[in-house]
Amino acid sequence: MSVSPLLGLGRDRAPRVDDRRLRLHPDRALPVDERQRAVAREIYEQTAGLPLICMHGHVEAEVFASNEAFADPAQLLVVPDHYVTRMLVSQGVAPGSLGVPRVDGGPVETDSRAIWRTFCQNWKLFRGTPSRYWMEHELVEVFGVDLVPSAETADPIYDRIAARIAEPDFRPRQLLDRFSIELISTTDPATSDLRQHSQLARQGLGERVIPTFRPDAVFHPDRPGWRADIDKLAEVSGVDTSTYSGFLAALRERRQAFAAAGGLATDHGHLSADTTPMPTPAAADLYFRALAGGVSRGEVQAFAAHMLFVTAGMACEDGLVMQIHPGVLRDHHKGVFDRHGQDKGFDIPVATEFTRSLRPVLDRYGHDPRFRAILFTVDETVYSRELAPLAGAYPSLRLGAPWWFLDSPEGMRRFRESATETAGFYNTSGFVDDTRAFASIPARHDLFRRIDASFLARLVLEHRLSQDEAVETAVDLAYNLPKIAYSRRSA
Amino acid sequence: MSVSPLLGLGRDRAPRVDDRRLRLHPDRALPVDERQRAVAREIYEQTAGLPLICMHGHVEAEVFASNEAFADPAQLLVVPDHYVTRMLVSQGVAPGSLGVPRVDGGPVETDSRAIWRTFCQNWKLFRGTPSRYWMEHELVEVFGVDLVPSAETADPIYDRIAARIAEPDFRPRQLLDRFSIELISTTDPATSDLRQHSQLARQGLGERVIPTFRPDAVFHPDRPGWRADIDKLAEVSGVDTSTYSGFLAALRERRQAFAAAGGLATDHGHLSADTTPMPTPAAADLYFRALAGGVSRGEVQAFAAHMLFVTAGMACEDGLVMQIHPGVLRDHHKGVFDRHGQDKGFDIPVATEFTRSLRPVLDRYGHDPRFRAILFTVDETVYSRELAPLAGAYPSLRLGAPWWFLDSPEGMRRFRESATETAGFYNTSGFVDDTRAFASIPARHDLFRRIDASFLARLVLEHRLSQDEAVETAVDLAYNLPKIAYSRRSA
Amino acid sequence: MSVSPLLGLGRDRAPRVDDRRLRLHPDRALPVDERQRAVAREIYEQTAGLPLICMHGHVEAEVFASNEAFADPAQLLVVPDHYVTRMLVSQGVAPGSLGVPRVDGGPVETDSRAIWRTFCQNWKLFRGTPSRYWMEHELVEVFGVDLVPSAETADPIYDRIAARIAEPDFRPRQLLDRFSIELISTTDPATSDLRQHSQLARQGLGERVIPTFRPDAVFHPDRPGWRADIDKLAEVSGVDTSTYSGFLAALRERRQAFAAAGGLATDHGHLSADTTPMPTPAAADLYFRALAGGVSRGEVQAFAAHMLFVTAGMACEDGLVMQIHPGVLRDHHKGVFDRHGQDKGFDIPVATEFTRSLRPVLDRYGHDPRFRAILFTVDETVYSRELAPLAGAYPSLRLGAPWWFLDSPEGMRRFRESATETAGFYNTSGFVDDTRAFASIPARHDLFRRIDASFLARLVLEHRLSQDEAVETAVDLAYNLPKIAYSRRSA
Repeated sequence: MSVSPLLGLGRDRAPRVDDRRLRLHPDRALPVDERQRAVAREIYEQTAGLPLICMHGHVEAEVFASNEAFADPAQLLVVPDHYVTRMLVSQGVAPGSLGVPRVDGGPVETDSRAIWRTFCQNWKLFRGTPSRYWMEHELVEVFGVDLVPSAETADPIYDRIAARIAEPDFRPRQLLDRFSIELISTTDPATSDLRQHSQLARQGLGERVIPTFRPDAVFHPDRPGWRADIDKLAEVSGVDTSTYSGFLAALRERRQAFAAAGGLATDHGHLSADTTPMPTPAAADLYFRALAGGVSRGEVQAFAAHMLFVTAGMACEDGLVMQIHPGVLRDHHKGVFDRHGQDKGFDIPVATEFTRSLRPVLDRYGHDPRFRAILFTVDETVYSRELAPLAGAYPSLRLGAPWWFLDSPEGMRRFRESATETAGFYNTSGFVDDTRAFASIPARHDLFRRIDASFLARLVLEHRLSQDEAVETAVDLAYNLPKIAYSRRSA
Repeated sequence: MSVSPLLGLGRDRAPRVDDRRLRLHPDRALPVDERQRAVAREIYEQTAGLPLICMHGHVEAEVFASNEAFADPAQLLVVPDHYVTRMLVSQGVAPGSLGVPRVDGGPVETDSRAIWRTFCQNWKLFRGTPSRYWMEHELVEVFGVDLVPSAETADPIYDRIAARIAEPDFRPRQLLDRFSIELISTTDPATSDLRQHSQLARQGLGERVIPTFRPDAVFHPDRPGWRADIDKLAEVSGVDTSTYSGFLAALRERRQAFAAAGGLATDHGHLSADTTPMPTPAAADLYFRALAGGVSRGEVQAFAAHMLFVTAGMACEDGLVMQIHPGVLRDHHKGVFDRHGQDKGFDIPVATEFTRSLRPVLDRYGHDPRFRAILFTVDETVYSRELAPLAGAYPSLRLGAPWWFLDSPEGMRRFRESATETAGFYNTSGFVDDTRAFASIPARHDLFRRIDASFLARLVLEHRLSQDEAVETAVDLAYNLPKIAYSRRSA
Repeated sequence: MSVSPLLGLGRDRAPRVDDRRLRLHPDRALPVDERQRAVAREIYEQTAGLPLICMHGHVEAEVFASNEAFADPAQLLVVPDHYVTRMLVSQGVAPGSLGVPRVDGGPVETDSRAIWRTFCQNWKLFRGTPSRYWMEHELVEVFGVDLVPSAETADPIYDRIAARIAEPDFRPRQLLDRFSIELISTTDPATSDLRQHSQLARQGLGERVIPTFRPDAVFHPDRPGWRADIDKLAEVSGVDTSTYSGFLAALRERRQAFAAAGGLATDHGHLSADTTPMPTPAAADLYFRALAGGVSRGEVQAFAAHMLFVTAGMACEDGLVMQIHPGVLRDHHKGVFDRHGQDKGFDIPVATEFTRSLRPVLDRYGHDPRFRAILFTVDETVYSRELAPLAGAYPSLRLGAPWWFLDSPEGMRRFRESATETAGFYNTSGFVDDTRAFASIPARHDLFRRIDASFLARLVLEHRLSQDEAVETAVDLAYNLPKIAYSRRSA
């Protein structure tokens, strides 16, 4: 069978003149129906200018503390964004040729122009994906590019972005203002000494760039670096972690340090949502044996589940909001992990159970006014079946935004359609961008606001909501609900 | 982080004059697209006036037998409706302050005006929920209220409803006519002596208000009251239940009594859909040990599954239709259950399997013309994967309506979109309201008819169905199919 | 309760004159919104005339090799199509009365007119199903029928089709041209001697009608005919299969034979997607014991999983594309299976896991440029959760079309909406018709193209894609991507 290497018979048609110009339509991502679009636009306009609350993300504190200029277009927009690299990899581009660093320091592509060209000439792969939507927004709004990416336009676009990056007002701290970011939270391991956040505090940004406490690494005794992290935890906390009670005390100390540095939340990315507690002696014994290196895989999972339960108790003590986002099997391909490390696009979701898994924590703390948990999932089957029924009953629960693979126009729409009728709007906690791609933050929030406006417009036109209510709700979803959901509980 | 306690920046806009007036738009819940809406309206108009067939619900027979006036607005519309109370609880309102009775008889709010005010001032929480849709319908259509609920309007609305309740034509039996309820089924335990239904028969309502046989309580030997219920079953049936064969004989006797009282169906709310039978001696032995109080959790589940299988056999004998709605983990929060009892909004769905679980029953009775089972789920992932393929093959099966958390505009729409292509329309069994909130029955049926009309209108405009066919189908879905699905099989 | 046997109160209305005439609207299955429909139509028009690539189906090679006229309307359109018979069976029509043959050769309905009448008078059961859509297309486009099926029109329609079937240009090979089928693949067991394909090669059709290698039967040692098939495999391959290594060698020989006959792919319909390999000695031992008849159900599943892993390795050797479509519990009803055999509409999907199940194969071969796997599912919950994340990362993976119960307007739409944002369009592999109903092939491809055009039109109107891109993508989806996905890997 002969196959033409050139995809797209339709290509033979003369492209329309304007197709070479990249522009953002003001009504992009709004619904097709013209009446609905008009109402959606009115609602969206009330939220478009609101400041961004970015309570869950992966931009490093270092970026703001050092405030250095970004390196180049490829290093800013392609190499660190696994949404982008995974799609190229899926069509046969090797990670190394995209400049993705190797764990062993071995050679990878260092020519950023070449990397950028590879991205641009594969632009069609991103059709229908949120990466395309975000990138168009960034190119136009952030960098002033008006060319559609392609093999031919790669270089002029590169030059335009490079010039923009070099401008003094394009430093990270300047972008905080430009992007209207009122508050941004980094994600930091339990072992972090928060040095960058101290520096940010001295720079007057201590309440604007805050840390989030993520203890996953020390909750999983089978991680290769676990033993070293336990030592590091002792060092940074000043608490002996050679016993289970010392481990808990050290965690408490770090939580206090994070809170003192402005932190409002903790973050938990376990494989399962299980929160079954162990009796304290059993946990202490397991911890003791883990230090000696001898626990089974089942014991590791039991310990991780136990620590979620323990964390909920600590949350009642110090008021940090607990974010739980289970259900991702990390590092699915051993070869990619061995060569390039983690977070390289090979984390794959699995079916996730919440109803039984969260029962221990909710039975104990679910009605405790000091407790707040925000639930995320990449298994959307639980929206209507488990998450909305739970959040529509327990006062301590809020539903996090459609996350990761679901942070997309259709994913967001399905979330509202599946969760709202049982959980309402007010048991949800607004948008989290959860990104390593700093320049994409405004695009992501903008898209969320457009999709919410579209959903609300439908309710208005179906006479299920007045337009005033819709506007008020949209503003709450975009701005007030994340602030409330992540506000410190009073212990 | 400072958080304004006042939600909704949008609130600053002057509310439009009409927003304070509660009205029902004639096209509410119909689709946004104007062409589709016009067709949907034409279809809906053909079903809007059809009588209601209410084959699955929780209004007590006592309500009709005594025909007393409802107590007051809060006791009618808030306190008993766990859809309403759970949403308020989810935002921090204590069940007791909503008047939800305590198991120990301890103090709860008794000021119905105060309860009603709490509800009204939290009206925004219900945005986007079916509770809001139903309540608006009830307020306008049933009570003649034209004020939007709020802190300010709570009292005048209360007064209006209270006055309406006091009118002689607002008694339950009068509402049967007003609501065009042709047939309504109560849900009654296997141990019921059906006294209320006897009384209703004497009042000439014996064929209009009928019982449904629900033996869940006696099928689960780990229930606290199980032993007492087994004794009560013996008493009411006049059959010795101290042996397994006596137990079966007593069940048969009660089924006959229910059928004699007009009953058409049985109802089964197990956690799992498992129908694996046990050998009779093993079942007898297990029953014997259960009476002595010594069966494990696994044995209880095996016995419950076995009893579903046995029930299917009995259905072939007496022609009662078997309703199966598994997959709800009851009483998720022990504290709420201990304080307030069951059915208080803390029943949470779990993933539910049907294909393998129902195989024993279907293998034996699936092609038996005497057998009819209607399947319900709150796990909508099974619509296209399991339920529609099963119902589109086995002549004994029909799919029940979108149920409980899925009894909502989006939930209904997803049901039709997911189930129709494989099961068609004629393997579904129409709407069941499944409500304790008597006054919401017309609103629920009305919504179902609107959503079905909308779905059918799309098929018409996509040229997949003629409009005459759509109207005929809509009428069948609203009226004929429930009557047929629940008709007594001829044994 | 009295139930009118006559469904459809709406029936009383005088049918509109045109409702008795069957016509295909040119815009059928396109979206309701008029702007979206206009764009969808423009896109669809660019793909409507493209040739059909039919890489996965169940039309027998014998049909083309013998090129005999089809028997009659019932034998062509009803009896062999389990989509049609299962729906009739679900409403109480016995398979035998539809002419479905009995395994024991016992009597079934042989009057094709009677079978056809049964189908026509139950036409309403198919409302909203793809069977209805396909059948209307066939009746009008293929047979020139312009009557709506009903009890009254059954005979004239039968006559019209019968006359058409008798025409010389209606032979199977002639229909290949008439249907614009560029390439069609049959599905053949590993034990096939490919005699019909040799004959087709001699007739000059060797590159147009090609075989697909389906070894399911020899991978499952618990199948009743397994031992005989192993002997047959030895006979047809000329390789001794009395040892595991001989078994593998025989499989390799057959794969070569299929490839030599033009075959491009293998096909695997296991219950689970598990691909866990066994150590070779363990596999050899299991195979040895299986020949002796003594393996457990668990061992059978382990062996089947192992053989999927082994098959992936063979695919790297010979470049045959591996199609995996797990998750169907075959022959759910033993009685129907015993009486009528397999593929009679009683295959029911089960929840299916891919992330963990495929990990062994993907870890080993996922980045191997010689490997290509195409994944199908009837569990649509995995689209966004597992399949799109996997296909959006691994270069060896492509997503197969919405399949079987999901091969429908809504099913296809949900596939694009759920998979595109993470996998893009270019990690999908186009449409497969997967049908035994030869005459329905054009209708199926046509529907797919309409639904894809509708989805793309929405992206255009939401300003997420230019119209030129949409057209190019539509052409790729309809024609280029299946050719590329199924192209032989170079080993």
